[in-house]
Amino acid sequence: MLPTEDRFTRLPAPPYYAVIFSSQRTDRDAAGYDEASARMVELVRQQPGFLGFESTRDGAGFGITVAYFDSEDAIRHWRNNAEHAEARREGHRSWYDHFELRIARVERAYGGVRREQDAP
Amino acid sequence: MLPTEDRFTRLPAPPYYAVIFSSQRTDRDAAGYDEASARMVELVRQQPGFLGFESTRDGAGFGITVAYFDSEDAIRHWRNNAEHAEARREGHRSWYDHFELRIARVERAYGGVRREQDAP
Repeated sequence: MLPTEDRFTRLPAPPYYAVIFSSQRTDRDAAGYDEASARMVELVRQQPGFLGFESTRDGAGFGITVAYFDSEDAIRHWRNNAEHAEARREGHRSWYDHFELRIARVERAYGGVRREQDAP
Repeated sequence: MLPTEDRFTRLPAPPYYAVIFSSQRTDRDAAGYDEASARMVELVRQQPGFLGFESTRDGAGFGITVAYFDSEDAIRHWRNNAEHAEARREGHRSWYDHFELRIARVERAYGGVRREQDAP
C-alpha cells in the first residue's frame, strides 16, 4: 500500500476552488495516457494558484480527480495552457469514453486521521 | 467492465452543492464497511434534495466520493440523519485511516461522451 499521507493534499482554509473531473478510461493507449498524466501533474504544479490535487481510479477504469486552485483566474490560466489543451483533445479523442467536469467554490472543509489509541 | 453510464450521475444545471469525500480505507471490517456503504446509498437516495453521486476507490484503498445536493439545507439534513451519524462514527473508529471532506458550491459543469466515429 502507498504511504497514506501522499494521497491527500494539504489545503489552506476555504474559500478556494475545486475542479472535479470524473472519467471513464477506454482501454486504449495506456502508455500514452500514463505519460501525459505524469506530464500534466508536472505542469499543473508550476501553475500560479494551483493548491494540490487528489486522484483515484478503480479496476474498471472509472476515476475521479479533484484539483484545487486559489481562484477562478488560476483555473482559467491552467485551462488556457497550450500543452494542457492538447492533452484534453487527446483525452476526448482516445483516452476517455466519457467525462464530466464540475467547477465549484469550496466553502467549508474538515478531516480526520485515525488515532492509534482507537485501534483495538 | 461495468456499464459506463451507471458510474456517472445526471445533474441539473448549476448551481448545486458537492460534498467531496476522500478517504483511505483501513484493511479492517470489509464486510461491515460494504454493508454500511450499501445502506448509506439506500438512505441518501431518500433524502430530500439529494441529486446523485459518483464514487471510486483504487486497489490501495484510496477513494473519492462526490455527492451532490440541491442546497446546503439538504446537506445539513443528511448530516443530521441518525443512521448516517452512526456510520460516520464507525468510519472514524474503524474503516478510515484518514478522510477529508470539502463542501463546495458547483458553479459550472460540462462533459462529453466519445463519439463512435472518433474510434479508429
